[in-house]
Amino acid sequence: MFSFEVQKKSKKSKARVGTLKTPHGVIKTPAFIPVATLGVIKGALDSDDLKSAGVQCQITNTFHFIDLDATARVGKQGGLHKFFNIEHPIFTDSGGFQVFSLGKGTAFGIGKVGSIFPGEKSDLKQRSQGLVKIFEEGVRFRSPRDGREIMLTPESSAKAQMQLGADFAYLLDICGAVVDDKNASLRDLERTNRWYERYLKVHKSKKQKTFGIVQGGLFKDLRQKSVESLNELPVFGIAIGGALGKSQREMFKIISFVNEKIDWGRPHHLLGIGDLKSIPEIIKLGIDLFDCALPTRVARHGTAFTSRGYIDVKRGVYKNAFRPISAACACPTCRVYALAHVHFLFKAKEPLGGRLLTIHNLWFLEKYVEGIRRKIALGKF
Amino acid sequence: MFSFEVQKKSKKSKARVGTLKTPHGVIKTPAFIPVATLGVIKGALDSDDLKSAGVQCQITNTFHFIDLDATARVGKQGGLHKFFNIEHPIFTDSGGFQVFSLGKGTAFGIGKVGSIFPGEKSDLKQRSQGLVKIFEEGVRFRSPRDGREIMLTPESSAKAQMQLGADFAYLLDICGAVVDDKNASLRDLERTNRWYERYLKVHKSKKQKTFGIVQGGLFKDLRQKSVESLNELPVFGIAIGGALGKSQREMFKIISFVNEKIDWGRPHHLLGIGDLKSIPEIIKLGIDLFDCALPTRVARHGTAFTSRGYIDVKRGVYKNAFRPISAACACPTCRVYALAHVHFLFKAKEPLGGRLLTIHNLWFLEKYVEGIRRKIALGKF
Repeated sequence: MFSFEVQKKSKKSKARVGTLKTPHGVIKTPAFIPVATLGVIKGALDSDDLKSAGVQCQITNTFHFIDLDATARVGKQGGLHKFFNIEHPIFTDSGGFQVFSLGKGTAFGIGKVGSIFPGEKSDLKQRSQGLVKIFEEGVRFRSPRDGREIMLTPESSAKAQMQLGADFAYLLDICGAVVDDKNASLRDLERTNRWYERYLKVHKSKKQKTFGIVQGGLFKDLRQKSVESLNELPVFGIAIGGALGKSQREMFKIISFVNEKIDWGRPHHLLGIGDLKSIPEIIKLGIDLFDCALPTRVARHGTAFTSRGYIDVKRGVYKNAFRPISAACACPTCRVYALAHVHFLFKAKEPLGGRLLTIHNLWFLEKYVEGIRRKIALGKF
Repeated sequence: MFSFEVQKKSKKSKARVGTLKTPHGVIKTPAFIPVATLGVIKGALDSDDLKSAGVQCQITNTFHFIDLDATARVGKQGGLHKFFNIEHPIFTDSGGFQVFSLGKGTAFGIGKVGSIFPGEKSDLKQRSQGLVKIFEEGVRFRSPRDGREIMLTPESSAKAQMQLGADFAYLLDICGAVVDDKNASLRDLERTNRWYERYLKVHKSKKQKTFGIVQGGLFKDLRQKSVESLNELPVFGIAIGGALGKSQREMFKIISFVNEKIDWGRPHHLLGIGDLKSIPEIIKLGIDLFDCALPTRVARHGTAFTSRGYIDVKRGVYKNAFRPISAACACPTCRVYALAHVHFLFKAKEPLGGRLLTIHNLWFLEKYVEGIRRKIALGKF
C-alpha cells in the first residue's frame, strides 16, 4: 500500500523527484504539505476547495484533537478522511511540537500554539509559565483552552494518531526544550530515543506509516547520533525537526549536514519551512517533503504569492487592478476574480477575501513546486 | 425584460404565488431574499455556494459601497453581477436605512450598521451622537468607518444604485427617525414624497426597476397617505418599511392594514422579516418578497434552522450526533457532513462551520418557502 520511489536525481545537487504511494493516492515529490491544523485549512476552505486548489496532501495537528478530546470520536467515525470528507493523503504530527511550544519552545520562536484560537491574543510567554513539565513517562501540560492537565506519552500519541487514522504519523519527540545546553540536549535526545522505542512498540496499524524526527538541536554530533539511531528504526520516513539556528545560512548548514546522513531510500521531510526563497534551496539539499503554515496564514491577512514575490493585496494601488493576482495565474480564484476584487473584499473585511487568497496561494505554491519537479526531471535544476 | 405575474391566489387568505421576471432570471414568489451586505453573503460564501444552496436572489446594501467609495469602481466593471460573479437577480436598498440607523433609528432597534464591521463592538447609541442630520436636500452623516462627512441625496442614491446595476433599486426614504411624534412623522413623510419625485426624475435605467417604500410609522392615516401616493408613482414594486410596532401582534396588524392598500398588480415586499414563525403569517397577508439577515447571521453563531425549529449546534448533546442537521435534509452541507461535524468545527472555532451552516440555513429556508408556494398552488394553504 505504501512505497517511496525516486525517479530521477539531479547531477548538480541532491535534488530528486519521486513518488510517494499511499492508500489515498500518490504524492509527487518534492511536495509541499499545507497545514490543516484542525483537519481543515483555515479560512473556511472545504475539501472541494482543496481539490480545486490542486493540493496533494495535508498535515493536521494531533495536539488540537487531544485538547478538544476528539480523537476517539474522530476514530469511531472512520478517521480524519471520513470526518472531514478528504480524499488526499494526510499526515498527523505527534502533538509534541505544540506541547513543547507551550513551554520553553516559544522563547526561541518555535511555533505559537495560542495563535490558532481566533479572538485570543497570543501571549504564550506569560501563559506558558509552568504549563509544561517533562517526565520519563511523557510530558504533562495544561490545556491552553480550558486549563485541564493532560499527559502526552509516546503511547498516547501513538493511540491518538491511530484514531485519527492519517496515512502518516510521527514519533513523539522532545523538541525545542533546550537550545544552548549540550548536556540537557543530550539528555533530551536519549530520552527521545527511548520514547521512539516505546511508541513503535504500541503502534499497530497497517494503514498508517510512521516518520521519525531528527533531534539534536545545533550540535552536529548529537544530530549525527539522532540520525544514526533513526536509520536503524523501522520508520517509513525521516523528518528534520528542532532548532535550526538563528540565520538562514546556519539553517541550510544544519539541514545539509543532517540530510546527507539520512537513509536516502526513505523520504526526507523538513518540518516547518515553506517560503518561496527557501523552497528551491532545501530541495537542492535533497528534501522531499516540507510543510508550512505560512502560505495559508499570510493569505488570511492579505499577502499573495505571485511570480514577482509577495504582495499585500490590501494596498491602495490595487484598487483598480483588474488583472489576475499573479500574472497568467489560472487558479480557481484568478479564473473568476481580479486582484481588485480580492482587494475590495479585504478592505470590506469580508472573510471571502481570505478564502479566495488562500486558494490562490495554495495553487501558486503547487505550481511553483511542480515547476521545480519538472526541471529536476529534465535535468535542468 | 421585467414582469410580475400572479399565477394563483389562496381562497382563505391573501396568499398568492407568482413569477417575477428579471434580466437575471425568474424569482418564484413568495420569495425569501437573503442579505448579501457587501455583495457577498457573510461567512466566506462565494457565488458557487449560493447556487448550490438554491438561493433565488439577494439584497445588497448600497450604504457600504458608498462608505467604501466603491460604487463608481463597481459600475465601471459592469456592476455587482460582474464584480461578484453573480448570476441571480440582485436588489439594492437605497442606503437610507443604514444612514438613519446611525441616528435615532437605533434607539428603536431599527438596524445596527456597526455590527457589519467585524472586530468592532456595536455601540451605536454612543457613536451615533450627532452622526446624522436631515436636510431638505438629503441626509448628512459621518462614515462609521473613517469619520468623513457624506451627503446622501435622492439623486446620489439613484446614481449609486445605477452604478451598482442591480435588477431592483429602492427609492430613498426617511425611515425610523421618529416613532411617537405624529407631526414629525408627517413632516418626514411629506419630505420623503418629495425625495421620491426627485429620485425618479434622475433614475434613468432600462435594466433596473424601482421599488417604493411605504412609510408613516405607527399612524394608520399616514401609512394610508404613503401607500396612496406610492400607488400613483411609476414604481415596479412597493415595500413596507419603517417602524412596525413593538409586538408581533401590532406588527401583523400594521402589515395587514398597509398591504391591503398596496396595488395588487405589483409585488409587495416586506423589509427585514425572515424568521420561521413570521414567514407563513406574512405570506397569508399577501407579502410576495421578504428579506432578512437573521438566517445567515445566526448561522455564523451556530444556530441551525431545522424541521423542529432552531437549534444551537454548539451544544454538547450534538457531539456524537452523526445525523443530518435537520431530518432528511439534502442541502450541500448535510449531504456531506453530519451535525456532529459541524458541532466540532464550531467548538474548534473553525470558520468553515459558519460557512457550512449558512449554506444549510439558506437551503432550508428556500425549501420551507418552496413548500408554502406548493401549498398555495394546490389551494391547501
